[in-house]
Amino acid sequence: MTVLNDGWFTEVFQDQGTAFSLQVKKKLHEEQTEFQKLEIWETETFGNLMVLDGCVMLTSRDNFLYHEMMTHPALFTHRDPKKVVIVGGGDCGTLKEVLKHPGVEEAWQVEIDERVTRLSEQYFPELCESNTDPRANFFFGDGIQWIRDAVPESLDVIIIDSTDPVGPAEGLFALDFYRDCMIALREGGIIVQQSESPLLHTNTIIKTIHDDMKKAGFDHVRTLPFPQPVYPTGWWSCTMAGKEKPVVYFREEDADQRPFVTRYYNADIHRGALAMPQFMVDVLEDEVMSSER
Amino acid sequence: MTVLNDGWFTEVFQDQGTAFSLQVKKKLHEEQTEFQKLEIWETETFGNLMVLDGCVMLTSRDNFLYHEMMTHPALFTHRDPKKVVIVGGGDCGTLKEVLKHPGVEEAWQVEIDERVTRLSEQYFPELCESNTDPRANFFFGDGIQWIRDAVPESLDVIIIDSTDPVGPAEGLFALDFYRDCMIALREGGIIVQQSESPLLHTNTIIKTIHDDMKKAGFDHVRTLPFPQPVYPTGWWSCTMAGKEKPVVYFREEDADQRPFVTRYYNADIHRGALAMPQFMVDVLEDEVMSSER
Repeated sequence: MTVLNDGWFTEVFQDQGTAFSLQVKKKLHEEQTEFQKLEIWETETFGNLMVLDGCVMLTSRDNFLYHEMMTHPALFTHRDPKKVVIVGGGDCGTLKEVLKHPGVEEAWQVEIDERVTRLSEQYFPELCESNTDPRANFFFGDGIQWIRDAVPESLDVIIIDSTDPVGPAEGLFALDFYRDCMIALREGGIIVQQSESPLLHTNTIIKTIHDDMKKAGFDHVRTLPFPQPVYPTGWWSCTMAGKEKPVVYFREEDADQRPFVTRYYNADIHRGALAMPQFMVDVLEDEVMSSER
Repeated sequence: MTVLNDGWFTEVFQDQGTAFSLQVKKKLHEEQTEFQKLEIWETETFGNLMVLDGCVMLTSRDNFLYHEMMTHPALFTHRDPKKVVIVGGGDCGTLKEVLKHPGVEEAWQVEIDERVTRLSEQYFPELCESNTDPRANFFFGDGIQWIRDAVPESLDVIIIDSTDPVGPAEGLFALDFYRDCMIALREGGIIVQQSESPLLHTNTIIKTIHDDMKKAGFDHVRTLPFPQPVYPTGWWSCTMAGKEKPVVYFREEDADQRPFVTRYYNADIHRGALAMPQFMVDVLEDEVMSSER
């Protein structure tokens, strides 16, 4: 039986009976912040690695998949997003993607743990290169309260870029929070949330998000799967909903002619991500397949 | 540092600096066949696990992703597949998917290692339930030679369901083999091959497959990514090519109204899998995006 020695960082997903390991050169940083244990490792092949409370958050090598898919489908679904809020997203990777859209006038990153952002500036500078953009705004504090205090009908897109629905992020996977999002969104507004693994969580977390978003008044809810090698099963998703309109339509031509570089996202990938695996269709019982044609 | 104890099976991808582990109950079988070391494990959460030469081949839980994607895109791209050959595929999972298509008259599984099939019958009976179908034919021996000896223009679809391109499977990732496939295929014939991880192998194995298939006379080559949690990066692909026609078109209506159950595949997933991530488009420089519309 292979036993990994001290040269490896291993995350054990005990409930799921799986584990994922990255070969590491050294630990670059470790601290207990006000909210969580934060580690930064230098890996052999995935660049730098950020770990929160023992869970892999991101690596330099493959975070582009997650950050692009948390951002561009939502922003190209909205007809003209001007004000965008990221709840969580302390590593600034989503903020960077949002600010690639020239039409965005104001972007807020509302992260509870300022240390995540400070360490990201140091160890993931490529994700923070838009932090000095005059359109970028930072608030370090409670995202639930921030959304509750937002001026009604003042936001175009809300991106919920959080950790798993346990601990500090639990309240971000909740009906009350979605209701506050609904109030804060302008007409045509879009909400998008990271929604865990299709293989592991379709019947649980993803189904609950769909139900709760619908209860909060979002008529059309869709889950978009995408690859994310360092997360459990290597397969992740975001769930997107619109205040009024179906989210299966997007500005395809704008996506195709986007004036910025992406590594995963393009208009075809966006269209492709709107296709749900048959087992998800069966569980989520959406008006899915027919509305797409 | 977490060290996994004896309750885990771990596959270390040394070149890639990653490892994947499954919690196991017990080893059910181990033998050295004529070709490779074959292990069967009972896992805690992924059902049974087959391992060849230390590499995870499949688990009961997630093999449907791979087997459906190796089969249905190719068979719904061909206009009327009657004779299908699987090179490799000893676990019989691909054969089972092929035989779901009522129009298939004759299917061959050409596997070099008969022990893989015998152990699959014992430990993965659900994959072998079509082995007694009168249309199913088995040849245990060299797939390269079998294709070379095939009557020219006698096959409709060739599915290359092999291990990694090292050891016994190396000759299946080769120009000469693709040339023999070209000769063996009838007009309208389709070839499809498992083609490793988009994240890890786009610039190497996948690019070489594209180049070699084109050299062998297949004008239109496409790589379709799909999730596969137990393989490196959790993200895998198949590469498909047509003898004459572009493989971006398929029998969408037939796929939509397929008279059999699938868990991952549907017409939307097929269409979605034809979308390549931007970094793959950049490398493979296909006539990709435009031909799809």
